[in-house]
Amino acid sequence: VSAPGVTPPGFTGGRLDRADALRRDPAGLAAAAADPAARLLVLNDGLEPEVDAGGRLVWAHVPEGAALALLGLEDGAPRFVALGAGPGGGFRSPRLMDLLARMAPGEAATWAAARSVVDWHARHRFCANCAAATEPFRAGWGRCCPACGTEHFPRTDPVVIMLAEHRGRCLLGRQPSWPAGRYSALAGFVEPAESVEEAVAREVMEEAGVAVTAVRYVASQPWPFPSQLMIACVAEAADDALVLDRTELEDAIWVDRAAVRAALEGEGPFGAPPPHAIAHTLLRVWAAGGD
Amino acid sequence: VSAPGVTPPGFTGGRLDRADALRRDPAGLAAAAADPAARLLVLNDGLEPEVDAGGRLVWAHVPEGAALALLGLEDGAPRFVALGAGPGGGFRSPRLMDLLARMAPGEAATWAAARSVVDWHARHRFCANCAAATEPFRAGWGRCCPACGTEHFPRTDPVVIMLAEHRGRCLLGRQPSWPAGRYSALAGFVEPAESVEEAVAREVMEEAGVAVTAVRYVASQPWPFPSQLMIACVAEAADDALVLDRTELEDAIWVDRAAVRAALEGEGPFGAPPPHAIAHTLLRVWAAGGD
Repeated sequence: VSAPGVTPPGFTGGRLDRADALRRDPAGLAAAAADPAARLLVLNDGLEPEVDAGGRLVWAHVPEGAALALLGLEDGAPRFVALGAGPGGGFRSPRLMDLLARMAPGEAATWAAARSVVDWHARHRFCANCAAATEPFRAGWGRCCPACGTEHFPRTDPVVIMLAEHRGRCLLGRQPSWPAGRYSALAGFVEPAESVEEAVAREVMEEAGVAVTAVRYVASQPWPFPSQLMIACVAEAADDALVLDRTELEDAIWVDRAAVRAALEGEGPFGAPPPHAIAHTLLRVWAAGGD
Repeated sequence: VSAPGVTPPGFTGGRLDRADALRRDPAGLAAAAADPAARLLVLNDGLEPEVDAGGRLVWAHVPEGAALALLGLEDGAPRFVALGAGPGGGFRSPRLMDLLARMAPGEAATWAAARSVVDWHARHRFCANCAAATEPFRAGWGRCCPACGTEHFPRTDPVVIMLAEHRGRCLLGRQPSWPAGRYSALAGFVEPAESVEEAVAREVMEEAGVAVTAVRYVASQPWPFPSQLMIACVAEAADDALVLDRTELEDAIWVDRAAVRAALEGEGPFGAPPPHAIAHTLLRVWAAGGD
């Protein structure tokens, strides 16, 4: 992502070294948990963080005997999160929206990793293959089944999010559950046996009846509600006639770059997605581009 | 993907309309299964297809009462696969390699969807949230838990696969399990709370000790063993010193474009990945590019 005024996508730029080798090293892991510099991320029952006045995440000492996931090393110091809470709450909690706006760069990425991993454990306590209760392994980055031996790893669901463009305008949609006036890029889950490009074309056709070609990748971000990989693209629409799927979209509009720039500045004619969403990044990149 | 001599990535270009609306329409679905034009994909116990002399998948009539997944519509005719077989076998079965080489364009994409979905059902018969036995719903594109109500959808795991480049050479690695002489792009699963770009940088550092920047997306493909989304990238290496993780890589080499072109033609100095793997596409794109 490089365009004037475009900042990195939300939930990226974290400072954690994920220290993959340490996850497979039980002795090293025990030493890391006992390290006086080790810290535990503070989360509430809804998996929301605490953020100090400087915009930094709040950490506590690591309690003995707790089930932990190793988030990684920050400036060499071990960083953990406790398993057992969750599943997490929604992404439109007013408290969380305020925290995200106040977090220093990279802090939201660290929190996102913690939220996704803890939430996954909370919703995957049993083996999908044989129904036995599973147990965390690999420093919290997996669960192993003692009955059938299947190893389970945290799930990350790829999602395509895209702007179809036609003669200097891009297509935005609106879901009924969104804040009043909000319009954003269309999006949908990548299905088994689809490429990114095929998923983009299918979703724009399903939701808006628009055929697109020339799909171009723009940027990606993690979205920790609970654990998506958002893949942002632009594609060329053959024409601008719309046939909306009303179960997905309440409305859709074609908007030009001047309208997008105004919306991103909070000056209408529609409400833009918030800065931590990659739809925001995608609109900034598109608005900065030529025709 | 557009470069001279580069064909579309493997397992893409299928002719199926996935007919998402029909999945949610029980009456329409029943009518589709009873349609005289409906067909069932022929798969063996390892989820391998049959392919006729023209390179087309072999289909059978749809039996009454079978648990089915709707693959979609092909030229308007319903196409199904039966649930209950699997999990599928490996991707280096000599028979399967031969079939993939013989399949007409797009046929491998249709088979890939069937293989991924059937395999997912075989390995996800129980609710990870509460351990109850789950049941297929949405025309085979999900499973629903009758005990806790959780809806489960087929899993697709994003994987980054990348060439680090440095002064006209790209980095290839070799895993011990690969065919003799084979070298290919490094790859690894995207973890929760990582962007594509962050996962590329982490994997190249973990496996080869190389720091990369300027990650560029090249192409994507589904990989149905069992259900990955392969995201192919190129990135710039700061220098060419290697520190290999011997648990991941047996060897790694820097090769120039002439060597890659020769390998893709089967003329050494190393064995290139097969055409249905996106590493092959990635190497063709890179070899066709300038320095």
